[in-house]
Amino acid sequence: MARASDRSWPDPEIAADLAALRAAAPLVHCVTNVVVSAFTANVLLAIGAAPAMVHAPEEVADLVPAAGALLVNLGTVTAEQAEAARIAVAAAREHDVPWVLDPVAVGPLPFRTALAHELLEQRPTAIRGNPSEILALAGLGAGGRGVDATDGPEAAIDAARDLARRSGAAVAVSGAVDHVTDGERLITVPGGDELLTRVTGAGCALGALVAAACAVVPDPLRAAASASALLAAAAERAVSGARGPGSFAVGLLDELDALGR
Amino acid sequence: MARASDRSWPDPEIAADLAALRAAAPLVHCVTNVVVSAFTANVLLAIGAAPAMVHAPEEVADLVPAAGALLVNLGTVTAEQAEAARIAVAAAREHDVPWVLDPVAVGPLPFRTALAHELLEQRPTAIRGNPSEILALAGLGAGGRGVDATDGPEAAIDAARDLARRSGAAVAVSGAVDHVTDGERLITVPGGDELLTRVTGAGCALGALVAAACAVVPDPLRAAASASALLAAAAERAVSGARGPGSFAVGLLDELDALGR
Amino acid sequence: MARASDRSWPDPEIAADLAALRAAAPLVHCVTNVVVSAFTANVLLAIGAAPAMVHAPEEVADLVPAAGALLVNLGTVTAEQAEAARIAVAAAREHDVPWVLDPVAVGPLPFRTALAHELLEQRPTAIRGNPSEILALAGLGAGGRGVDATDGPEAAIDAARDLARRSGAAVAVSGAVDHVTDGERLITVPGGDELLTRVTGAGCALGALVAAACAVVPDPLRAAASASALLAAAAERAVSGARGPGSFAVGLLDELDALGR
Repeated sequence: MARASDRSWPDPEIAADLAALRAAAPLVHCVTNVVVSAFTANVLLAIGAAPAMVHAPEEVADLVPAAGALLVNLGTVTAEQAEAARIAVAAAREHDVPWVLDPVAVGPLPFRTALAHELLEQRPTAIRGNPSEILALAGLGAGGRGVDATDGPEAAIDAARDLARRSGAAVAVSGAVDHVTDGERLITVPGGDELLTRVTGAGCALGALVAAACAVVPDPLRAAASASALLAAAAERAVSGARGPGSFAVGLLDELDALGR
Repeated sequence: MARASDRSWPDPEIAADLAALRAAAPLVHCVTNVVVSAFTANVLLAIGAAPAMVHAPEEVADLVPAAGALLVNLGTVTAEQAEAARIAVAAAREHDVPWVLDPVAVGPLPFRTALAHELLEQRPTAIRGNPSEILALAGLGAGGRGVDATDGPEAAIDAARDLARRSGAAVAVSGAVDHVTDGERLITVPGGDELLTRVTGAGCALGALVAAACAVVPDPLRAAASASALLAAAAERAVSGARGPGSFAVGLLDELDALGR
Repeated sequence: MARASDRSWPDPEIAADLAALRAAAPLVHCVTNVVVSAFTANVLLAIGAAPAMVHAPEEVADLVPAAGALLVNLGTVTAEQAEAARIAVAAAREHDVPWVLDPVAVGPLPFRTALAHELLEQRPTAIRGNPSEILALAGLGAGGRGVDATDGPEAAIDAARDLARRSGAAVAVSGAVDHVTDGERLITVPGGDELLTRVTGAGCALGALVAAACAVVPDPLRAAASASALLAAAAERAVSGARGPGSFAVGLLDELDALGR
């Protein structure tokens, strides 16, 4: 049922999506976790988007209408941020702003798992997670042990397809190879590097890139695939100059910024 | 009415202010946003100050008396942090500690805009913002779309002068060229680099540097100008070794640390 | 009473503890401050551990049973995070998970000082602090002026020994030379570099490394000493390639990752 196709950089569609991102410089409103907020903002700046990290319940709704996309990442969710997420998502739906759910560590933690399922009812444009998180959000598997991926990406493809069909979202499963599906089509994005797993927030940054792409690319599946391919391409280039995870993270920002220039 | 003067590094006054900073190593108490807190602390350490990022309403007042200056940055303000800001500012006034307001994204967001206007009544020593934020705080313009500068710095000079006269604060308007005014005098600080706009928290770090300078320089106008000039000088030097925004941010810390040595 | 012994890299015990860490890849649950959370997570990843930064009172208890160790760092503690810390520590004790207390800025700030003394009753496995913090926690000295170390490490050794005896914890005092004691034995860890004091969160990262080591090393004194020695060794190596504190912090992650490979 799914049509699989490999993609590698440079691909005309990915290059076009990157150019659209740089031309539009969309405001990407991030309700995200405190650990990755700086890196996420720097990744968005490097790809040409404008990050805004407003997360107070008192003001999230005011920023959404001006945003090209909204990201909701549950990494360090609290009761207050859960409320902010609900308000932001409602505003996104009201104003037809695409929004992306990154269900960090959903599965073993009941509080955020219930929130993720509640938000899932609000029809995210795309969902980005590791295999354990996607399995848990699809109602399969027990989830990982926190932010880890404890299942391989292939194991989660069926769950992703099912989740995409039920939610209407494009679903991106991160791993050594990324898989993106809208429930029918399946795109495999190879590349990237194992070092991505040793930089905190690399996965979360991909969620933000998916949101940025959704701001300028009408097809969420294509947006998620382009975002994954852009990060993978930058990662491959950053590896050559890296001595370890510290210099890799620095180089990743440099290479994202240099993509397509 | 205003006397404009160009400044470039090395300037004897700037060098003297840097030496004073390094000699005093003032404690700079930052009530700032979660996105930039690590970078802000590292910038303060690099220039020779001692950062303290305490922001709980229960304890902000206890730290202020020991601080050389207080920074209040509204980037990710919440109701709890607004309360902490009020308490910290009241303590700063009681103990004659200079304090700096960085009105991040004031204008489009009513919650923080009202807070900024409330805090403005508490007579900040200095204010640091981009043109949109200064226009909004002066009651002119609608403000930017979040953290962006959507107006050029020149457009905000009149607003800055007006704001300085009404508030009693030195006002620094950040841009390709920085402008600093106390309502009468106007100092233009050239230099810096466009890469500063592609590192999250570079503007917020300038707000922290202004606070650090206010701890050791009696004239807030001169303090704000010296802080702007120090960041601009470090940025110019960091550009040469940078491959993109990632390595530029790293080099900026190295160059701030090396200034004047 | 105390037996002092110098350690330098490579030491068979330290190498064995690093190998154990890399083999077990323990989940280290961090209830820590917002300034250092990203750097802490990257340091843990570099040494081979798996960081989890969950800090909401609603879910901290759910993660602790799966964790190899818990870190409680009071750097930006709020009332909500104090509640989370209490819950997490209670869960750690219930499930026999080792836990480490990092009493950042305890002494001058009554709110966190009271919390630290309360948590001390819950028998931490290890405590990591600078001399001022250890003196304050031991009930001696007035504490520093925030996060600074205003006393030399030697001055705090007696306090550390006393604190270790009363609390049952291994106590690590950070400084130009680190001292670790369980109240009887005293281990001196030389090395490291002054640049560690100019990177925000370097001390906090050591607290996290102590927690990671406690997850795989049964003797808390040895765990704390090995963690100190690993950070010192990485710091010494990172200095040679560093141009200042920015590149030093990047190199520190690279060198932690490279240790023992």
